[in-house]
Amino acid sequence: MEQVTLGLVGGGTVGGGVFQALERNGALLSLRTGYKFHVAKVVVRDLKKPRPVPIPSELLGTDWRAVVDDPAIKLVVELMGGTSTARHVVRRALEIGKPVVTANKALLSAYGEELFALARKHQTNLYYEASVAGGIPIIKVLREGLIGNRITHLYGILNGTCNYILTRMKLEGLEFQEVLDEAQRLGYAEADPSLDIDGHDAAQKAGILASLAHGFWIRPEQVSASGIRTITKLDIQFAGQLGYTIKLLAKVKQIDPGTGANVRSKIQVSVSPTLVPNDHVLASVNHVFNAVFVRGDVVGDTLLYGRGAGQDATASAVLSDLADAAFDLRNGVQSRIPPFVSHERNRGILPLADEVSPYYVRLTVIDKPGTLAKIATLLGRAKIGISSVIQPEGHVGESVPLIFMIHDARHASMTRAMSQIGRLSVVRAPAVMIPVEQF
Amino acid sequence: MEQVTLGLVGGGTVGGGVFQALERNGALLSLRTGYKFHVAKVVVRDLKKPRPVPIPSELLGTDWRAVVDDPAIKLVVELMGGTSTARHVVRRALEIGKPVVTANKALLSAYGEELFALARKHQTNLYYEASVAGGIPIIKVLREGLIGNRITHLYGILNGTCNYILTRMKLEGLEFQEVLDEAQRLGYAEADPSLDIDGHDAAQKAGILASLAHGFWIRPEQVSASGIRTITKLDIQFAGQLGYTIKLLAKVKQIDPGTGANVRSKIQVSVSPTLVPNDHVLASVNHVFNAVFVRGDVVGDTLLYGRGAGQDATASAVLSDLADAAFDLRNGVQSRIPPFVSHERNRGILPLADEVSPYYVRLTVIDKPGTLAKIATLLGRAKIGISSVIQPEGHVGESVPLIFMIHDARHASMTRAMSQIGRLSVVRAPAVMIPVEQF
Repeated sequence: MEQVTLGLVGGGTVGGGVFQALERNGALLSLRTGYKFHVAKVVVRDLKKPRPVPIPSELLGTDWRAVVDDPAIKLVVELMGGTSTARHVVRRALEIGKPVVTANKALLSAYGEELFALARKHQTNLYYEASVAGGIPIIKVLREGLIGNRITHLYGILNGTCNYILTRMKLEGLEFQEVLDEAQRLGYAEADPSLDIDGHDAAQKAGILASLAHGFWIRPEQVSASGIRTITKLDIQFAGQLGYTIKLLAKVKQIDPGTGANVRSKIQVSVSPTLVPNDHVLASVNHVFNAVFVRGDVVGDTLLYGRGAGQDATASAVLSDLADAAFDLRNGVQSRIPPFVSHERNRGILPLADEVSPYYVRLTVIDKPGTLAKIATLLGRAKIGISSVIQPEGHVGESVPLIFMIHDARHASMTRAMSQIGRLSVVRAPAVMIPVEQF
Repeated sequence: MEQVTLGLVGGGTVGGGVFQALERNGALLSLRTGYKFHVAKVVVRDLKKPRPVPIPSELLGTDWRAVVDDPAIKLVVELMGGTSTARHVVRRALEIGKPVVTANKALLSAYGEELFALARKHQTNLYYEASVAGGIPIIKVLREGLIGNRITHLYGILNGTCNYILTRMKLEGLEFQEVLDEAQRLGYAEADPSLDIDGHDAAQKAGILASLAHGFWIRPEQVSASGIRTITKLDIQFAGQLGYTIKLLAKVKQIDPGTGANVRSKIQVSVSPTLVPNDHVLASVNHVFNAVFVRGDVVGDTLLYGRGAGQDATASAVLSDLADAAFDLRNGVQSRIPPFVSHERNRGILPLADEVSPYYVRLTVIDKPGTLAKIATLLGRAKIGISSVIQPEGHVGESVPLIFMIHDARHASMTRAMSQIGRLSVVRAPAVMIPVEQF
């Protein structure tokens, strides 16, 4: 049986997971692919550091350059994470014509355009199934399974930490901080949780999926992101009463141009807490699970669901890339499918200000006559339509919540109106404003 | 741009759908693949018959042999359905070394082993994404995305007609026959609905998925199938009260051997109405949608959801196969991935008699003292454990329903016990016995 000799760069959770999965299922993978996958070297930062998965010490090394340049190593597997050394590792391998498998979403999000161009230039390939929604083969499905479709809508629950927090807040009636504290104690959330809970992680993934779907590279700073810190138990309860579940949702939508001068459609790429109707399948995606809902113009609505992160889900995706890389190596094909296909039809990102959506708005107001009239007047002047107003019962005291459901409105109009409303003396706290998705 | 010249065999719903999808998205597909897909000929049975999608008459022909043998045609796309002529078409193409794309589950289910062997022998490939769950790229996901996994469990809602009927029965409190009649009037169900509602269609698909997952060919007669004709409004209501939804579920499970002499695990492949817990994601798959739930030993639980049939969903899958076939042709690779990989680890099908499951049982009994005792005695003698008994209120008259929830029991023990119970004078109708899946 032919052998592919691998150099793993990274021996932590993900690297260890891949090593372990190859130990467990390497024989099966060989039966299915006709290839033996041999890990010749595992590059780590510190030889002495305890590892989540034991790796024989004779495989360990600290010099990534020696491994990448080793002529015996045919395939470089970058699992170290980060965007500094990892970028050098991937660049070097591609420059010497070696295919690379990576699980690094931060790297692709920041430098994908550069790296895919480099792979093309050196006639080699960059495989990245594990970079987005680990256990869900969304990259393969978008690039291959749905290749005949224009992707008009893509919605993703892409951050397991946020989904875990929102699920527990909903099911157990807890506040954000309570769940976050516990998640940190249990190791489900990072000590610095900002990357997750402020939406940046989901935004990186959304950018990669949007780039793939629409064929032009979307930079991380073009993805508008807001996180779940401002979501309270109250919002989850009110949303529930209205028939919605709050999810941190990534949205990639092709916004068709109007009849005016702008003939090109734009792409909305954003991540924000969002009210999802309870009867939509995404509302049932709970705990750490991820899901990607894709609407193609031929296939209609599809959904993929699975674990988005963690040692094993990520390892499964890396194994899939190893198989693809092996097939390409065997066939002498440097890239069966180019790693990134530019088709550029819908160039142009819709600015956040121009995003149009219905909204849920929660205000904290003084409970006295005339309050509603003042707020409604300001919304009316801004030409923002109210579809319903709810003054929940059971709230006593000087400050009470007041919920508005708003018809389709531009984001810019909403933020301007909320700012004006915030200056009213009867309003006691910044407005909580959450878009509603009708799918 | 290089061109792939296609011969379409079949110009009905599916063939027309593929023709239309290529008209609509051919340019996009070319940008993404680097290939122009050119339909040179469409073979139909009757030139005069009205077609769901108009196809220019100069493309139409009736002689499939001339098209398959035409040296200009590089790829044969079999979309005619059935297992007689279609088998000749596919065999002939493979025998002369031409790759084939097919959407024909009946053909693969009956002759898959023969056809895959023929493809291997003639160093060509058979692509079949559209054969199971059209809009869901489950073939690609199983063969490539989850290639590093042992598939321990696979559950599928694979028949849109049955799911549509069961969904409407549940949501609208209708009886089976009412919904079927309407579905037939609307064209959602065939005039002869047996293939769908008796579970044969789902069984064919389950057999293909099981063969793929476990690496040995499962013949259609090895898949035990029962359909939804016996399901009543009452069963759906009682199941709902107990926290379950009834779905026609395909189950492919690796059953680990006991500690006895039988060291090889067996594969359970069956299709039957099944009680699915309401909090399981499969319970929310409604109307004509299909879903496949896959548990891999590395990836954990994943789900794919989409339209399983229909012109457009099927066309999307065929386009994906066209792209794969074009890549393989360009790369001079007859089969990047062998169409069917034998890995044979778990050879052996679990007989239906040996399937073990909890059960829901509905009996129709005479409402008089001693009835329950007689039935419970027979179950006790058969060593079948009762987890609960429900005598629903509000049923008056001589015959009333009596519901048992049964602990894990062998299928053979259950059918024997039900037959004995059926002979009791207090029992007035055959038992309805539905397995419960706990996932």
